[in-house]
Amino acid sequence: MSRTYELDRAHVFHSWSAQTLIKPMVIDGAKGSYVWDEEGTRYLDFTSQLVFTNIGHQHPKVVAAIQEQAARLCTVAPAFANDVRSEAARLIVERAPEGLNKVFFTNGGADANENAVRMARLHTGRRKVLTTYRSYHGNTATAIQMTGDPRRWPNDGIATDVHHFFGPYAYRSPFWSSSEEEEGVRALEHLEATIQLEGPSTIAAIVLETIPGTAGILVPPGSYLAGVRELCDRYGIVFIADEVMAGFGRAGEWFAVDHWGVTPDLITFAKGVNSGYVPMGGVIISDEIAATFAERPFPGGLTYSGHPLAAAAAVATINAMADEGIVSHAAAVGEDVIGPGLRELASRHPVIGEVRGLGVFWALDLVRDRSTREPLVPFNAAGPDNAPMAELLTETKKRGLIPFVNMNRMHVVPPCTISEGEVKEGLAILDEVFTLLDRFAV
Amino acid sequence: MSRTYELDRAHVFHSWSAQTLIKPMVIDGAKGSYVWDEEGTRYLDFTSQLVFTNIGHQHPKVVAAIQEQAARLCTVAPAFANDVRSEAARLIVERAPEGLNKVFFTNGGADANENAVRMARLHTGRRKVLTTYRSYHGNTATAIQMTGDPRRWPNDGIATDVHHFFGPYAYRSPFWSSSEEEEGVRALEHLEATIQLEGPSTIAAIVLETIPGTAGILVPPGSYLAGVRELCDRYGIVFIADEVMAGFGRAGEWFAVDHWGVTPDLITFAKGVNSGYVPMGGVIISDEIAATFAERPFPGGLTYSGHPLAAAAAVATINAMADEGIVSHAAAVGEDVIGPGLRELASRHPVIGEVRGLGVFWALDLVRDRSTREPLVPFNAAGPDNAPMAELLTETKKRGLIPFVNMNRMHVVPPCTISEGEVKEGLAILDEVFTLLDRFAV
Ligand SMILES: Cc1ncc(COP(=O)(O)O)c(C=O)c1O
Ligand SMILES: Cc1ncc(COP(=O)(O)O)c(C=O)c1O
Repeated sequence: MSRTYELDRAHVFHSWSAQTLIKPMVIDGAKGSYVWDEEGTRYLDFTSQLVFTNIGHQHPKVVAAIQEQAARLCTVAPAFANDVRSEAARLIVERAPEGLNKVFFTNGGADANENAVRMARLHTGRRKVLTTYRSYHGNTATAIQMTGDPRRWPNDGIATDVHHFFGPYAYRSPFWSSSEEEEGVRALEHLEATIQLEGPSTIAAIVLETIPGTAGILVPPGSYLAGVRELCDRYGIVFIADEVMAGFGRAGEWFAVDHWGVTPDLITFAKGVNSGYVPMGGVIISDEIAATFAERPFPGGLTYSGHPLAAAAAVATINAMADEGIVSHAAAVGEDVIGPGLRELASRHPVIGEVRGLGVFWALDLVRDRSTREPLVPFNAAGPDNAPMAELLTETKKRGLIPFVNMNRMHVVPPCTISEGEVKEGLAILDEVFTLLDRFAV
Repeated sequence: MSRTYELDRAHVFHSWSAQTLIKPMVIDGAKGSYVWDEEGTRYLDFTSQLVFTNIGHQHPKVVAAIQEQAARLCTVAPAFANDVRSEAARLIVERAPEGLNKVFFTNGGADANENAVRMARLHTGRRKVLTTYRSYHGNTATAIQMTGDPRRWPNDGIATDVHHFFGPYAYRSPFWSSSEEEEGVRALEHLEATIQLEGPSTIAAIVLETIPGTAGILVPPGSYLAGVRELCDRYGIVFIADEVMAGFGRAGEWFAVDHWGVTPDLITFAKGVNSGYVPMGGVIISDEIAATFAERPFPGGLTYSGHPLAAAAAVATINAMADEGIVSHAAAVGEDVIGPGLRELASRHPVIGEVRGLGVFWALDLVRDRSTREPLVPFNAAGPDNAPMAELLTETKKRGLIPFVNMNRMHVVPPCTISEGEVKEGLAILDEVFTLLDRFAV
């Protein structure tokens, strides 16, 4: 047992875990799409860690930018102005939809969402927030309350005026629809009915992950987001798009909303903005909402807002992604290699119920029975109920791949920079593992 | 107007501000106790930015550690183990009171407090949180609700079951006491009465800044914190000490609770842990509370928990502080130079009502009248009402010093590494400025 592991077990309290039931793998190094442990065993990282190393591990330009900024100026307080913070804001805004011209920087995704909701409430003078059941928005009080997945349950009721509705999920429709198109139409009818009954004049914001990520990479039907925009306009509600996971190349565009040409009022981001090399998140703000706080103080803030080291990493990441065509690579590798490869696996493995996604943002919905779509494991399963998914985890790792698993799903979410050869290496491992798992499916 | 300034005004949305009414000073570089702008004008930083660069700006060992870690491994997800994260946890725990042996890492102070409250609620099975009016705990929903200062007002009611009581403040006693000792006794009587009437069996946690910082560097009477500990024990309440500002050398000890030998159940930290060179915060957890989450999952987490680059900065900062005797230097420079120097100023400037503090953590309570203690500006003053404090800001900056001002107070909160000569340079500037301000005092 290594000293790192021993000290971890003695002193590090881990996120979302029963502390004595985990055996964290030690990561000692990483490069591009790979990580390795203390013995030097290499793993293909099909998770981008927590879906954030969009530019891959240890990109030399980002590493150099961090080193140079560290030598120059690690930190200044938010009240000052600073060159890299200014430049990071410029680069982000340049990529955002038109009319969103200001950035409020935070440390991560949760506080980005907290501050977006604060802006929406003060801008509208209303309190309620509507958000979807299939979502994750972070672990602080409002963000976890907005979260739909079971991580909310033990934290329920700690923030006020947050209410959940159903978003579109064609493969497991909550609206009894029988096509993608019908799913989109019904999802909007359901949302409008919810708005009507909650009271339009009470609703400050609708918060959506543009493409719900951890909840299943639920790419919305083509008409859905434009419909949400239209409802928000009609009822004077602020549209907040959470692009913490979907943004900065993950979906094959700078922002996932670009796929549908929709302009939210606020976009929250984190993760991909600097590939998590230094903690950073933020809110991109429409001119209209920014104007609300032109002469009236915005009552939110944090010590590390616009941190220079994080900003320098963002500047280098965005520039490298642009110079090296990384976003279009993500789109192409998804369309030409990952998508077709996963569909080919699905054609041979009955345990794969659906393949969905785009860019480097793919989910396999695993089933016991393709005709009934019964999930491979029950919702929020633990212990023996979760055995097939635990086996997936063990068997992929054994073969040198780190997989992202959630409920009955495996997500294929490698860096945007992954090569065709690396994708194929991963698919070959998955082929072996699904061959084992097929025994659970009819 | 520089490009940095222009881009800032166009694209950076600032914390706690009316966006068009601010003129952020550009900081272009910094070293030790000084910062400078784009013209190269140097300023003595009597604020440690937002009271976080405890080790001073650009400490070479911390810069080198960040550069080395960046070259080696910028980031891994929280689920893995990692050498610098393990070592940072060990070094923190080694300095914490006995019986607190685990660290949950966050990005800053707000999310540290959010997670501490989550732990307390789940550990006790109770919901209510008691906290003081004179406090700041962060900007996320529960943290801002816990905050006592007016920054809570526009965010009121967004988190549930948080209630405020009065902490000790001998100079402006909320308990009509006439001595420091009486203030301590009455503060505990008031707290116990509050506990009784809120219902002991409903209270999960009492959250206190060990020494309330932004609210006025309110060093508690000698008996107070031991009394709070005793009340928490008697009623089964979790004692959370917020040391985000007071910890890591600021008060001349590793933790401010060390002054009174009191052991909280949870300590929250951020800022000084790595002097804010990379965003990091966290919760130090008692064995008893950690045990609650031994086999039951802890339902909180965040993408950048235990970030390697932040951890490397913490390891280097703590080691440098230990090797270079920085904490004891902070204690000594406070006792021998800052304290006496400020008292000497007070002896000549009637506008200074009280000098209080320790380490590099000092407040001047400014008054119009020493006998009535009428504050120099009203509580939460703005515009013309705040003119004397605005003048203090302008006049100190004009003379090359960046001051920390809040309400009717100026805080003297330089880096722990400040030299005697630098303190004297700052005091000479303050002497000139208080000479101007004396005209407001009788
Ligand atoms: C869509 C989404 N929003 C918000 C968050 C929270 O971000 P953080 O963990 O940085 O607080 C996440 C994290 O996974 C996310 O996926
Ligand atoms: C005592 C205290 N707690 C919490 C916080 C919040 O920390 P952060 O701004 O990193 O969220 C602060 C910030 O000034 C603080 O002084």
